[in-house]
Amino acid sequence: MAKVKVYIKNKKGVLDPQGKTVESALHSLNYKNVENMRIGKYMEFELPDKLTKEKAKEQTIEMCNKLLANPVIEEYTFKIE
Amino acid sequence: MAKVKVYIKNKKGVLDPQGKTVESALHSLNYKNVENMRIGKYMEFELPDKLTKEKAKEQTIEMCNKLLANPVIEEYTFKIE
Repeated sequence: MAKVKVYIKNKKGVLDPQGKTVESALHSLNYKNVENMRIGKYMEFELPDKLTKEKAKEQTIEMCNKLLANPVIEEYTFKIE
Repeated sequence: MAKVKVYIKNKKGVLDPQGKTVESALHSLNYKNVENMRIGKYMEFELPDKLTKEKAKEQTIEMCNKLLANPVIEEYTFKIE
């Protein structure tokens, strides 16, 4: 099986309240040097080996756009291993 | 600033209901070849350049254990760029 790893985060300019909250929590735990915390999602799944790398890439992009990410406010990158 | 990327996912053997749900959703969208979907968190933040790589690594591990991840059920990996 080919392993696919997808990383999703909010686009630049889209507020990330969860990240801000965790950043403040870190500051109050005395890690005051942490900046620009952004939190997103990480997904991994497997696709059959018989798919070519091209097909796997195509299918992953389709799945991201249709279900995994919200392309209006999120951006994604992925890696096929 | 040094960029740190942290990837958190449930340990092997810990159920991942969110992943299961997304996997079923993909199957019903006709991506039936997707298997072993696991969903976790992805975080990125910046640390000052004046920290040595060693110190940055140490601080990230500390922050993960104290706040970012739940070491009982989650495992994390990170990368400092």
